[in-house]
Amino acid sequence: MTNLETVAQVGENEALKRTIARLNASEHALVGPGDDSAVIAAPDGRFTVTTDTLIEGHDFRLDWSSAYDLGWKAVASNIADVAAMGAIPTALVVALTVPGATRVSWLEHFADGLRDACVNLAPGCGIVGGDLAASDQVMISVAAHGSLEGGEPVLRSGAQIGDIVAVAGTLGRAAAGLALLESGNTDAISAYDELVNIQRRPKPPIQAGKAAAEAGATAMLDLSDGLARDASRIARASSVSIQIDPLQLQGFEAVLEEAARAIEANPSDWVIGGGEDHSLLATFPAGASLPRAFKPIGVVLPEGPSPVMLGASPLPERGWDSSRATSY
Amino acid sequence: MTNLETVAQVGENEALKRTIARLNASEHALVGPGDDSAVIAAPDGRFTVTTDTLIEGHDFRLDWSSAYDLGWKAVASNIADVAAMGAIPTALVVALTVPGATRVSWLEHFADGLRDACVNLAPGCGIVGGDLAASDQVMISVAAHGSLEGGEPVLRSGAQIGDIVAVAGTLGRAAAGLALLESGNTDAISAYDELVNIQRRPKPPIQAGKAAAEAGATAMLDLSDGLARDASRIARASSVSIQIDPLQLQGFEAVLEEAARAIEANPSDWVIGGGEDHSLLATFPAGASLPRAFKPIGVVLPEGPSPVMLGASPLPERGWDSSRATSY
Repeated sequence: MTNLETVAQVGENEALKRTIARLNASEHALVGPGDDSAVIAAPDGRFTVTTDTLIEGHDFRLDWSSAYDLGWKAVASNIADVAAMGAIPTALVVALTVPGATRVSWLEHFADGLRDACVNLAPGCGIVGGDLAASDQVMISVAAHGSLEGGEPVLRSGAQIGDIVAVAGTLGRAAAGLALLESGNTDAISAYDELVNIQRRPKPPIQAGKAAAEAGATAMLDLSDGLARDASRIARASSVSIQIDPLQLQGFEAVLEEAARAIEANPSDWVIGGGEDHSLLATFPAGASLPRAFKPIGVVLPEGPSPVMLGASPLPERGWDSSRATSY
Repeated sequence: MTNLETVAQVGENEALKRTIARLNASEHALVGPGDDSAVIAAPDGRFTVTTDTLIEGHDFRLDWSSAYDLGWKAVASNIADVAAMGAIPTALVVALTVPGATRVSWLEHFADGLRDACVNLAPGCGIVGGDLAASDQVMISVAAHGSLEGGEPVLRSGAQIGDIVAVAGTLGRAAAGLALLESGNTDAISAYDELVNIQRRPKPPIQAGKAAAEAGATAMLDLSDGLARDASRIARASSVSIQIDPLQLQGFEAVLEEAARAIEANPSDWVIGGGEDHSLLATFPAGASLPRAFKPIGVVLPEGPSPVMLGASPLPERGWDSSRATSY
């Protein structure tokens, strides 16, 4: 029997109680949910913190993403920003606003998504606090915390001339999934559902972040806005330019070609401009032994007229931007 | 000349840049805003974290609160949850959503409020990250972090039979301010503007939280939902009952009597049921020397039929609830 009760009917306190019951505990929490604050271990005397918000109509559509998908995505997109510092995700707090007519079962599935993303992508990490309130729009705001485990944080500003540029994770798959959904082509959507599923439930290579730091990564960020735009962020912050080798992108494009043909799209646009895979882009000293998750795609050059080059051509900063949340 | 440009006109990136320029730095930040995460010092190997959200139409009205007020209040209400653990506020992240037609100058005043609340209520604390996005409603979600500085966290569950119950800060003033605004009585609003101002820009006694912990407080929370409701939270969490001495509330009521007469209200309802002063309620061992900010108002008794008694009468859990955000 499906539970048809709404948040307005059971009240926010009861709705929250049922939601919390689905969550896993953080292994790093010394004091968990239920008090004015949680207390989290920070064994090396530091913690990392980042925040990101998903808003209905801007970052997602409720007819394209289930409650479970949104819980998963809210965790995945935030812990990618933890991994991009070279840190291990430890604890999250989640602020959720929903219309009063939202079913409690929707909240429960949202919580299942939060939990499963933590358990699968960052074992040991959990939700340690939250907030539920009534609003006109669904809005999910997460703050994610990490432990550097004694290592130095990997910033955007450390890339050195001569470094190797490498990526861990997929490129263009989430953008392909979005394009499929937008095409309305139900045959293509079902034929390439593994791409649609990456759009709905991205699987950033979280462990690769810490591995990159240990391998001596000089700069790193998570690819939330696409390779072109995010590579230019490292280039500008480090006062260098980044040259991407188009041959090294062919493998990423090849797996998208069939889907692209089905909806008459260009797979290269997805690979270069598409964000939301939340893969990691990092630079390593030329002699470094790259962690297994990373594939080299380019080199760091002296600052030039364009922050990012694709082969010999300047690469415009295309990417996911206009309607997107802006973070600092 | 007033700046009439809107967020939609200048773009979210530029609007965010101008907003950030107004903020103060956190003295605890090892890596500040601008990377995927900030890095914050946690010298004793732990940090506290809490989150709370303010939503237009539910938690505030834009015709009653200025952008500055909202920035101030978002900080004050969240750092009170830090102080209530016995911790010192160190760093905040802020997620803000606004309609595209919002003026950039509104964001700048919001940032001024964030900054001034940090500087005035918790020197050393600052904003270390944030997120700005377009939405239909104004929504402010803050995650606040604190340092216990080697002390033990003060939970809600530690109250012992025989303890003294004490409060630091004001009671009922924010509720009086809200009642004045709701009355629409402009003469009364202007005559008692110090109460309206506490509603708009609460001044929780942040330093008293750490002082309470050092004085041996056995339980503590911040009074966000009113004395009756919040005292019952300590009582339930600690499996005790709390007896409040009505004589000890007279001083809190006396300062509200004139304003109450002006709008035909009962000051005792404000003192007992009104939240949002974000004062601290704590319990201390009978022999403890109370920090100067704390005034005794009751005692801890064995668990009884009612979690909170006002003298010999059970005190119903009145308070700020129905349309309010729920936290855990």
